[in-house]
Amino acid sequence: QGTRDHPPAQAALRDRLLSAVVSCFKRHGAAAIDTPVLELRDTLVGKYGEGAKLIYELQDQGGELLALRYDLTVPFARYLAMNKITKMKRYHVAKVYRRDNPATTRGRFREFYQCDFDIAGQFDPMIPDAECLKIVHEILSDLQLGDFVIKVNDRRILNGVFAVCGVPESKFIPACSTVDKLDKVPWEEVRSEMVGEKGLSPEAADRIGEYVQLHGGLDLIEQLLQDPKLSQNKVAKEGLGDMKLLFEYLTLFGITGKISFDLSLARGLDYYTGVIFEAVLLQQENEHLEEPVSVGSVAGGGRYDGLVGMFDAKGRKVPCVGVSIGIERIFSILEQRLEASGEKLRTTETQVLVATPQKHLLAARMKLISELWDAGIKAEMLYKKDPKLLKQLQYCEDTGIPLAAIVGEQELADGVVKLRDVATRKEVRM
Amino acid sequence: QGTRDHPPAQAALRDRLLSAVVSCFKRHGAAAIDTPVLELRDTLVGKYGEGAKLIYELQDQGGELLALRYDLTVPFARYLAMNKITKMKRYHVAKVYRRDNPATTRGRFREFYQCDFDIAGQFDPMIPDAECLKIVHEILSDLQLGDFVIKVNDRRILNGVFAVCGVPESKFIPACSTVDKLDKVPWEEVRSEMVGEKGLSPEAADRIGEYVQLHGGLDLIEQLLQDPKLSQNKVAKEGLGDMKLLFEYLTLFGITGKISFDLSLARGLDYYTGVIFEAVLLQQENEHLEEPVSVGSVAGGGRYDGLVGMFDAKGRKVPCVGVSIGIERIFSILEQRLEASGEKLRTTETQVLVATPQKHLLAARMKLISELWDAGIKAEMLYKKDPKLLKQLQYCEDTGIPLAAIVGEQELADGVVKLRDVATRKEVRM
Repeated sequence: QGTRDHPPAQAALRDRLLSAVVSCFKRHGAAAIDTPVLELRDTLVGKYGEGAKLIYELQDQGGELLALRYDLTVPFARYLAMNKITKMKRYHVAKVYRRDNPATTRGRFREFYQCDFDIAGQFDPMIPDAECLKIVHEILSDLQLGDFVIKVNDRRILNGVFAVCGVPESKFIPACSTVDKLDKVPWEEVRSEMVGEKGLSPEAADRIGEYVQLHGGLDLIEQLLQDPKLSQNKVAKEGLGDMKLLFEYLTLFGITGKISFDLSLARGLDYYTGVIFEAVLLQQENEHLEEPVSVGSVAGGGRYDGLVGMFDAKGRKVPCVGVSIGIERIFSILEQRLEASGEKLRTTETQVLVATPQKHLLAARMKLISELWDAGIKAEMLYKKDPKLLKQLQYCEDTGIPLAAIVGEQELADGVVKLRDVATRKEVRM
Repeated sequence: QGTRDHPPAQAALRDRLLSAVVSCFKRHGAAAIDTPVLELRDTLVGKYGEGAKLIYELQDQGGELLALRYDLTVPFARYLAMNKITKMKRYHVAKVYRRDNPATTRGRFREFYQCDFDIAGQFDPMIPDAECLKIVHEILSDLQLGDFVIKVNDRRILNGVFAVCGVPESKFIPACSTVDKLDKVPWEEVRSEMVGEKGLSPEAADRIGEYVQLHGGLDLIEQLLQDPKLSQNKVAKEGLGDMKLLFEYLTLFGITGKISFDLSLARGLDYYTGVIFEAVLLQQENEHLEEPVSVGSVAGGGRYDGLVGMFDAKGRKVPCVGVSIGIERIFSILEQRLEASGEKLRTTETQVLVATPQKHLLAARMKLISELWDAGIKAEMLYKKDPKLLKQLQYCEDTGIPLAAIVGEQELADGVVKLRDVATRKEVRM
């Protein structure tokens, strides 16, 4: 349940999509790493907030207690700490596992790919953070997914908001995960969860509501920097100062048109410590479907300066910022679009079919195809001793093979091959 | 335990290796598919003989009982049956899981990649089987791993041997998995396991011993076709007839020089029904290491005509033959060879570093790098406001970046960029 096989047409489309994402990561100088699908359970504990209950655990068959990775960020942090690496720019494309309620039409699965790009290291503020946003902008533009917006916020600003609204520090994380639901449910519901489930006072909730419903650009940052309460809060002020610097850099990158400073953005995970962001498609440009499909967030990420330190015996911190591309949702969109266009993706790359017009020529076909393979040419033949020529040409048409190399008795006697262009039916002897 | 992280240098080498294997699979016209890492436990039960105890099971957290896949063959058969596919040529490169005793220096891990190519469908005998062997030959030759031999046998010949030696049919599979150990232990030990653990009579074991220690080529096939006992056995005769045909095709492919018909080859898995094969490296061509590293089998496969039918409600069979490349063992060899050669593999593809010789030019760098990225050029910059030029050039040398695009105050005033070849130090203004 919640997993799927990818038949060749899907695998080919997925391959094309992953190539586009990876080529962007490489354009930004990232190296690839790979980590196991299995992690020690202890590694995953306490990193995912309310997501913890969705972790797949392996049965205790003796030896270590294991779980399937929930994302690629925690394994990356574990990797950095284990190898005492303090500086690295890496990408990782791999499957992760969550025992969530699947919503397969919306591209939500229990096994799904994540495509992560992260920058680890102590650098001048906001330069790597700005690059992560540039990457999201490049990928979503390259893939021509239609209009999008990248919401940006900072955990320090949110924590500042909670503090000045009278929330005790112990309730910052629960308050945060409640605010995170604002993109799906109206403020009234979020407010009642805050007061009911999370135990915030109604007054605190109301004060929070005034902040977290704000969104804008540089003007809003300036306004909040002047806010009599918020400007008195040290972490909020730091966050707002960095947000202003981030907008400066994003202006140099020429991408502020798609960026929205949005105080309702909270992100569910525990480990974020600074800038957070999430990209959302604004509409589906698919006229062929009756209803536009809402696919929600297609990329997200943020800064997590404390996570690596959690895996280091001496607690040494390595500041990190990264982005994860929500490839499954994008895949759903591209798949529906391909279907609507009627375009057929080739699932193989075969250049030539080795064929015979007469019987008893299997040996000639086998010799020729062997020569072609050895020369690096992508070639197929039918696995029949005496196939009909029509069947062989039909196979070319069905699978998109452009050429047929035909050896008949005459060609064999003359020491030539007849090369046929399947579409135009033009033939040359060579 | 038994898993590992792949740092960038390893990931880059692995990427190169997998590309070589996949390009061979594509050369033979295979399409890619992908299946989940998780399978229902029931799907895996009864397919792996003595391997069954090595299956990783997931904890029962409610819902289905799951396990991690043990190979890619059983999921492929499940996929064919579920989708009622009766004809397909596919490849699949993915990780599989076995709770084995790890032997990491020999390239044996609990999580490892398999690279599988399989041909499903009812075709004329031995044509797809011969192609699988051609693929093994191409890959091992392309990778220049040194001399190798591909051992070939047929389960029908083995079963015929067991039958004429007086083994009851119920003990064919246990006898088979014991014979399979002949490549690691001497005949005496195999014999005593047959008699002691597997309950064969000493006479039967001795008779088996006379057959399974034979190996050769077409001559041996002819000899066994004349064998007074074996030639009377229907399945053995079928197997020997097909083996003769296979050798005919392999002669057309020009690869019999590396093929050995070896009656000791049995393969451990339950599901094989016909031709089986295994490629072994004969020696390590690594003069730099003190001892040659024995890495054992580097590819294996065979025919499994009954497996798909086990997943079909009506038992409909789809004949299949396939090959799995033992990428981890090959990887170990390539890694040791690379280490010995002292060659350093680049882990990134960055073409140009955007640099500044003076302070206060971060904005100019950010504007330029943004233009480069948008033009599809792989570019990096240091994440510092005012890095020293020497540090920037040092970074190029450390990571193999060939060019530096330098913007200083003069270049900015002139509206140009100074492009520097890092190795030759030659500069041009452009």
